Amino acid sequence: MRDFKWSDTEKKIARAAYDTALQKELTAIMAKFKELAVAVNSPGDMWDIEHYLQNARKDIDAKYVYRYSRLLALLSQLVLENLIKREDLQKLAQDKLEIIDSLLEKHRNYLSEDDE
Amino acid sequence: MRDFKWSDTEKKIARAAYDTALQKELTAIMAKFKELAVAVNSPGDMWDIEHYLQNARKDIDAKYVYRYSRLLALLSQLVLENLIKREDLQKLAQDKLEIIDSLLEKHRNYLSEDDE
Repeated sequence: MRDFKWSDTEKKIARAAYDTALQKELTAIMAKFKELAVAVNSPGDMWDIEHYLQNARKDIDAKYVYRYSRLLALLSQLVLENLIKREDLQKLAQDKLEIIDSLLEKHRNYLSEDDE
Repeated sequence: MRDFKWSDTEKKIARAAYDTALQKELTAIMAKFKELAVAVNSPGDMWDIEHYLQNARKDIDAKYVYRYSRLLALLSQLVLENLIKREDLQKLAQDKLEIIDSLLEKHRNYLSEDDE
């Protein structure tokens, strides 16, 4: 992906979207964790939770890398996963929105091919 | 430590003591886990629990190795940690009890030196 200039406004928009999505995911992981923890009945259940937390943490760490060279791909992914809305990104410059929209479209086409 | 013969009765005694202690430790870890889990308020608290579980599991795995060559040392340790009672081992043969008692004494002397 080519090298974009990010204005201060754009950086704020991207950062807010990133933070919103991360917060949503962490909240969901915490809710799931609490649900699992209450149901723990044996040491095995407890080690399953250790495993769940370890995987969740690794997934989050791998996904939420805030790097400008990766940001358009990540923002597109977050829209696809319904963690943010496409409208949240509306004030990014046109060149970036075009990339995002083309990634969204590519992915949706790919998904609809899967359905056939 | 020299190679002992373990009669079937002795094996049963050792195994029961080992299982009792392991069960007590796991129960305590589960109780602590439940207490921590209820108090989780942030992702950081949750990753602390992951860390707690990981350490607890590694400690248990390293400690509870059921190997006859290590058993007298382990049983002595479990008595010292009040996880089993010296009386639970009373029906082991005299040669084994002597080793256990000498390990207990050595350790208690060491602890009392520490106090001075």
